[in-house]
Amino acid sequence: MFQSFEVTSKPEDGPARLARLRVEITREGLDGFLVPRADAHQGEYVAPRDARLAWLTGFTGSAGFCAVLADPAGVFVDGRYRTQVKSQVDLAHFSPVDWPEVQLGEWLKEALPNGGSVGFDPWLHTQSELDKLEEALAESAIEMRPMANLVDRVWAERPAKSNGKIIAHPIEFAGESSASKRTRLAKVITDHGAQSAVITLPDSICWLLNIRGSDIERNPVVQGFAILHEDARVDLFTTPEKASDLPTDADIHLQDWANFTPALQALNGPVMVDQGSAPIEVGNILRAAGTEIIYAQDPCILPKARKNTIEIAGARAAHLRDGVAMVQFLAWLNDAAPKGGLHEIDVVQKLEGFRQATNALRDISFETICGAGPNGAIIHYRVNTDSNRAISGGELLLVDSGGQYRDGTTDITRTVAVGTVGAEEKACFTRVLQGMIAISRARFPKGVTGRDLDPLARYPLWLAGQDFDHGTGHGVGSYLSVHEGPQRISRLSEVPLKAGMILSNEPGYYREGAFGIRIENLIVVQDAPMLEGADARDMLAFETLAYVPIDRRLIVADMLSGGEREWLDVYHARTLEMLGPLVKGDVRDWLVAACAPLSACNSRL
Amino acid sequence: MFQSFEVTSKPEDGPARLARLRVEITREGLDGFLVPRADAHQGEYVAPRDARLAWLTGFTGSAGFCAVLADPAGVFVDGRYRTQVKSQVDLAHFSPVDWPEVQLGEWLKEALPNGGSVGFDPWLHTQSELDKLEEALAESAIEMRPMANLVDRVWAERPAKSNGKIIAHPIEFAGESSASKRTRLAKVITDHGAQSAVITLPDSICWLLNIRGSDIERNPVVQGFAILHEDARVDLFTTPEKASDLPTDADIHLQDWANFTPALQALNGPVMVDQGSAPIEVGNILRAAGTEIIYAQDPCILPKARKNTIEIAGARAAHLRDGVAMVQFLAWLNDAAPKGGLHEIDVVQKLEGFRQATNALRDISFETICGAGPNGAIIHYRVNTDSNRAISGGELLLVDSGGQYRDGTTDITRTVAVGTVGAEEKACFTRVLQGMIAISRARFPKGVTGRDLDPLARYPLWLAGQDFDHGTGHGVGSYLSVHEGPQRISRLSEVPLKAGMILSNEPGYYREGAFGIRIENLIVVQDAPMLEGADARDMLAFETLAYVPIDRRLIVADMLSGGEREWLDVYHARTLEMLGPLVKGDVRDWLVAACAPLSACNSRL
Repeated sequence: MFQSFEVTSKPEDGPARLARLRVEITREGLDGFLVPRADAHQGEYVAPRDARLAWLTGFTGSAGFCAVLADPAGVFVDGRYRTQVKSQVDLAHFSPVDWPEVQLGEWLKEALPNGGSVGFDPWLHTQSELDKLEEALAESAIEMRPMANLVDRVWAERPAKSNGKIIAHPIEFAGESSASKRTRLAKVITDHGAQSAVITLPDSICWLLNIRGSDIERNPVVQGFAILHEDARVDLFTTPEKASDLPTDADIHLQDWANFTPALQALNGPVMVDQGSAPIEVGNILRAAGTEIIYAQDPCILPKARKNTIEIAGARAAHLRDGVAMVQFLAWLNDAAPKGGLHEIDVVQKLEGFRQATNALRDISFETICGAGPNGAIIHYRVNTDSNRAISGGELLLVDSGGQYRDGTTDITRTVAVGTVGAEEKACFTRVLQGMIAISRARFPKGVTGRDLDPLARYPLWLAGQDFDHGTGHGVGSYLSVHEGPQRISRLSEVPLKAGMILSNEPGYYREGAFGIRIENLIVVQDAPMLEGADARDMLAFETLAYVPIDRRLIVADMLSGGEREWLDVYHARTLEMLGPLVKGDVRDWLVAACAPLSACNSRL
Repeated sequence: MFQSFEVTSKPEDGPARLARLRVEITREGLDGFLVPRADAHQGEYVAPRDARLAWLTGFTGSAGFCAVLADPAGVFVDGRYRTQVKSQVDLAHFSPVDWPEVQLGEWLKEALPNGGSVGFDPWLHTQSELDKLEEALAESAIEMRPMANLVDRVWAERPAKSNGKIIAHPIEFAGESSASKRTRLAKVITDHGAQSAVITLPDSICWLLNIRGSDIERNPVVQGFAILHEDARVDLFTTPEKASDLPTDADIHLQDWANFTPALQALNGPVMVDQGSAPIEVGNILRAAGTEIIYAQDPCILPKARKNTIEIAGARAAHLRDGVAMVQFLAWLNDAAPKGGLHEIDVVQKLEGFRQATNALRDISFETICGAGPNGAIIHYRVNTDSNRAISGGELLLVDSGGQYRDGTTDITRTVAVGTVGAEEKACFTRVLQGMIAISRARFPKGVTGRDLDPLARYPLWLAGQDFDHGTGHGVGSYLSVHEGPQRISRLSEVPLKAGMILSNEPGYYREGAFGIRIENLIVVQDAPMLEGADARDMLAFETLAYVPIDRRLIVADMLSGGEREWLDVYHARTLEMLGPLVKGDVRDWLVAACAPLSACNSRL
């Protein structure tokens, strides 16, 4: 079992740790110290050793930071975590701050009106972050001071570095050799007029070297730093013993973490550094050595996002396998839920069991979100033994889950009816489905960004005066992070969509204290086939990767247009065609029923 | 008759004028000179005296410029004018340049590899424009040199300044007194820490002072410059005799154009200047006088865009009046077109006649676009005696037109079938209609921009591999410019929509050499009424201003969703309800038939 259900946050530990940190802050002559959630690799998940924010405050969300001053200790969290933070931190000692509405710079200026020095660990922050903060502080007397991490000084029982094995990610999954990727990227380096590039994002390193790791949960990445040279050689800095099972490669020079700083100091000539992801300290080391820096995006990001045909074939295979597990799960749920006695944790365990039974599951791709009734409205809900709600008739159950397989990463959400649910839930579900279908069916000219498509997923809800407060979709890696950039379907995404990008398509609707709805499939951008009567324009379209029935009991057929209904019927027919041969008995019977076409009724609104 | 049909461009005049200009360029020791379409007020229409680009090159489009060098004279035009420019300029002497794909800075660097000096008139360019150009030229040896206009020196027969009368725009149309507007804006000036603001956009001046003019065609604006002071007084620089019919106002100090420069020189401390619309020379004069400049958007722009309730009531009345003229026109066309013998010019004349018969038409709001068959595919087509095509059965006729009335400005497009047209035209028309309905029905949260809504208008076309190459909508003034910022429904618009903004909603589809389709209504943003079951979110919606039948013969009813069909039937019922009592006899009979509901057929795709 990958997922655990313990209540991990212990608010009672925070105050004493905070007091110890404040002693160090005073000793250094500082007025404050920053404790971010991020590690030196800026990932969404961090190793236990790097979970400084959770250790100090109790807050376990995937983003945020604590600004520890002599008096307030502000815990900055975004909209997803406003409720959670209040239950995880000791509110007598920590003050939640609504971020990004309140920006750190403004908050510091208000808290330190007469100026002061605030320390930070330059390995845990990016140059972009610091530039923005210093711009906000420009007309104040507040100084930001880089230094060794003060949390590490007071964290006696801090866990050791992970020693997770590195495995090869062979060409049958990667579709392109590391040598080919490194040669392609070496050209990007010389095109920038640079001699090397520093890569600090673990998923970039794994993609570039065709390796995977097990340093942290859920993301099969290797923690390390890399330097790619203009001759396509790579220096990889990590714990070398982790690579004992890996064949050696003359062009990949494995070294200990400790060598990273000297190697940076020894670099000649312009070095590409990503100011949005590299630690500030990387730039500091290069500057101190008199080496020219060219700030540019990590060159792995865009090619990694555009999956090749082998990776897309792998994604299809992973989704078919995962789809069988999902269908077994939904058939079981359909039978078990009405009998009563089930709780959210039972559901999560059962689902993971079906995925485990594929014998191909390497990990779940994130903590399953399984919310019954009002818990479904908590967008980033993670069930624990305290919150574990019974599955009751008349309620919706939202299950958002995924698996890490060697051929691909999955992420799928289905919302199902338990017993008979109300007309309002069905109307909302149908609107969410309409938005999800609008994205699924979309064709669009090249150059269109995720921002341009996002409103299509919201329009049916908007017409009813409703909306949802998250993006419509995120990029997904190939046996890598389930959240991967740069593409998104979101108001915030200005990145043009390109063939090969995998995205989630997951509109939702949440009524606080009542119910939550989300329907999610992964989709991949493809060149659109030319249609008769079409313009001579290059257009793109989405191929759906996930085929798992959508609960027809929740669909108000009369609300759908002819085109929407046709999409749904074709989707279900294809689901039966693909999964039918892979399941048997009761599961197959359930699948056949779940994939039936909508009854032929009038589609007028 | 406002519209004329003469062929205004004389390509044969260009070469001699160009030769005379080049003599002056050489005499000044320059390598080139810029000749923009814009005048000092950066409007879309210019007075004959300011039509330097057309005089020099023959090109009459509403945007573009000529960069005259010793060898090439590049005529930079955008996508709308690529075909037109080739027929309007002498191609042996002028070289069309695809702009904005090719930027002036890049073009100059290629044409003048060894550097050089390019002159420009600092009254005709904005600071934003110059900053962008100089940034592009930063690493070249090319220098931009401000100077008196060389075209004016060689243009012997240049027309005199207009002497068009200024009239009051009374409170019954404006809805707010000039004193109230000036007091509101004076506060904006002090909020910016300034003492005054320079206003150079004619429609801003007209809005602020509740005046209208007749200096240029189609736009009832007064050409002039204004300075608004922190005490709400205004200095207006124009030709004072134009205001002889206007009551005097102690707070509005009318002065001659010649006083503008001395008045700028006499200003004290910080002055607000709009770098996107004010002539560069305004900043130069202030800087030379040692006066601090605060670059900020013209403070009239946003309040002008948000029409008050009186202006919106005026817009409704203007549209009702204009709708009667449109219905009379469409009924006439329905009868006359099948008889044969009609040409595009006949249609334009007849339509303007119906608008004239309202006895309220002050001007047409732009040159009517009337394109039969393949001419409909030329997006900015203006018929002349050379191009005048016969209206033939089996073709579509696209008519885009509008009127200037004292209570409001209209802009409406209808595309009608002449005789029996093909299935392909009908399918395309229906998709355009679906996009137009999607915008009309839209509800959306506050903060949404025109860019966010634009894809909704394209989606039905996208699904068929089609698209259109213009924005979905533009802002519209209140008895002012038919194109007014800052709001638009366009990929380029990042301005949040606000209650009171009037926009056009005009998706289209164009098949070169075959047919063109556009359907356009004006709409106004309103606070959306709360719906049952809706979230507690502030949302906005559009009220449709234009009620004129949409050609039901071109609609494939089976392609529409229930909601789309319902919108159309309600729209036509309301059209009949509003216009029915205002027309008689054959026109009323036609209207009743044109407003019938779509026959009850299956709406499945």
